[in-house]
Amino acid sequence: MTRTILESRSRTVTIGFDEPFCVIGERINPTGRKKLAAELEAGDFSTVERDALQQVACGAAVLDVNAGVVYNSNPNPNETEPPLMRRMIELVQALVDVPLCIDSSVPGALEAGLEVASGRPLVNSVTGEEERLELVLPLVKKYNVPVVAISNDDTGISEDPEVRFAVARKIVERAADYGIPAHDIVVDPLVMPVGAMASAGQQVFALVRKLREELGVNTTCGASNISFGLPARHGVSAAFLPMAIGAGMTSAIMNPTRHGEMEAIKAANLLMNHDPNGGEWIRFSRITDAMKEGASFAEAAAAAGAAAGGRGGRRRRRS
Amino acid sequence: MTRTILESRSRTVTIGFDEPFCVIGERINPTGRKKLAAELEAGDFSTVERDALQQVACGAAVLDVNAGVVYNSNPNPNETEPPLMRRMIELVQALVDVPLCIDSSVPGALEAGLEVASGRPLVNSVTGEEERLELVLPLVKKYNVPVVAISNDDTGISEDPEVRFAVARKIVERAADYGIPAHDIVVDPLVMPVGAMASAGQQVFALVRKLREELGVNTTCGASNISFGLPARHGVSAAFLPMAIGAGMTSAIMNPTRHGEMEAIKAANLLMNHDPNGGEWIRFSRITDAMKEGASFAEAAAAAGAAAGGRGGRRRRRS
Repeated sequence: MTRTILESRSRTVTIGFDEPFCVIGERINPTGRKKLAAELEAGDFSTVERDALQQVACGAAVLDVNAGVVYNSNPNPNETEPPLMRRMIELVQALVDVPLCIDSSVPGALEAGLEVASGRPLVNSVTGEEERLELVLPLVKKYNVPVVAISNDDTGISEDPEVRFAVARKIVERAADYGIPAHDIVVDPLVMPVGAMASAGQQVFALVRKLREELGVNTTCGASNISFGLPARHGVSAAFLPMAIGAGMTSAIMNPTRHGEMEAIKAANLLMNHDPNGGEWIRFSRITDAMKEGASFAEAAAAAGAAAGGRGGRRRRRS
Repeated sequence: MTRTILESRSRTVTIGFDEPFCVIGERINPTGRKKLAAELEAGDFSTVERDALQQVACGAAVLDVNAGVVYNSNPNPNETEPPLMRRMIELVQALVDVPLCIDSSVPGALEAGLEVASGRPLVNSVTGEEERLELVLPLVKKYNVPVVAISNDDTGISEDPEVRFAVARKIVERAADYGIPAHDIVVDPLVMPVGAMASAGQQVFALVRKLREELGVNTTCGASNISFGLPARHGVSAAFLPMAIGAGMTSAIMNPTRHGEMEAIKAANLLMNHDPNGGEWIRFSRITDAMKEGASFAEAAAAAGAAAGGRGGRRRRRS
């Protein structure tokens, strides 16, 4: 069975066919968050701290960290992003004890993150583009870490799932040339909005099954894409996630602070027999109950985590 | 592609691999509803009328009708159930124009229902028990109607999915001996509570896939069983339904007046590409929006149906 091992300073998270679905929190990312971008340029990390604690309390097993700010004072991300990535990673891992996902299109920022990250982080990402393969795979090999492989290449993103599968296979083969095993590749088959492409859901379910059966790899996706542009979109996402899990998807990069999606994932884990004795479901149902008293999901989840003595990833004291 | 055709007086509903999931409303059933049982014995059908209208407004495509009352005045259901079934079916089909599912363990009640039901109702049910096969299949043949086939036999309900599959195959073969085609058999593979049997979800998903691929039959289930006994059980059901749909299940006998489960089904239809242009999803999202103003799901759904000129099954005038 394929197992991708991630580590923080003291904890191990396994992405795997026989494991609970791995939720990778997407919030620490200034893309499309102007206020956060301005804060980061000004050296204010209060939102990052809050997002780290809140996502882990809500059930994120891994946190994505993206430092993709375009500074007003310096428009060259090759200069600005590596030191910001380093700083953000040091800050986040001092606050929460979960593995990190180092997210950048700037190779220097990936390496800066790899230099300071504790344990075994996930690199996000490589694509099938030649330049990216040549820049990122050596880093992945050097630091002996797993990597997210996105199924587009120099020709762009194909609407044909067979082409996306072929790109994924190419990345797995190229990684093998570097001595990187398939179980350290987590393929993102690329999720299209179902509002724009009616076959988008079926494409993903079929691709995930094929990636798992034929390449033996774990899979991930940006889960919110599926419902982009639709009314009541969170209802679509909350059905998509269990269906993807049923098809064999093993992780997603997503917002873990939304109750509907997280409840759907906890229920899917139970239904996949990945929640022995239903302990996680019962724990989550207490958070749901607490929300009936008026608490937000984040508040109820944080309270439940505190009551359980800091389970859920917050370290008990800072070192 | 397998298609099971049901008809009311003027409308056709198709259960099929390429069709939206078929919701069979379960509410018109006195089992476990003491108040309803007492009303029926007293000749009061107001709850039946309300349940019929409400379930259709909420999105049931078919209504199950069960007359299984044990009268205080006469404990013999072979005497009391056939006339009650006849009366209930006449009443329901005068009120709503959707196909009915005639639900009884009393063969005389099934035949009474078949005599008066308009169109092409679904018979619920036959099992693999010899006596049931011999009593029910001739009725199914005589009236040329489809039938729900439950995967238990004279040895009871097996916990082994392979045995349940074998029972389903036996029923399909026995039906063929009567000239009843496989597309008129809707197999219920039997859903166990996941709280009591941790593999229950995976069993169903695997069985549905196998029933579809190897026997070519449509499938159904009593969807609420999966979450029996669990806290926050509707969250489990709302994830189970999309997962079952992804595995290929084509109908369920369930409570259609719960928003969470119905939203999950509408989203799954969209994700399976069974909702061309997303029209049904958009219509449902307006009901969801109306609930934010304080309306219940049943109220909001009824208002949306009225605004759409009675779409959703209510006949415009009685004949």
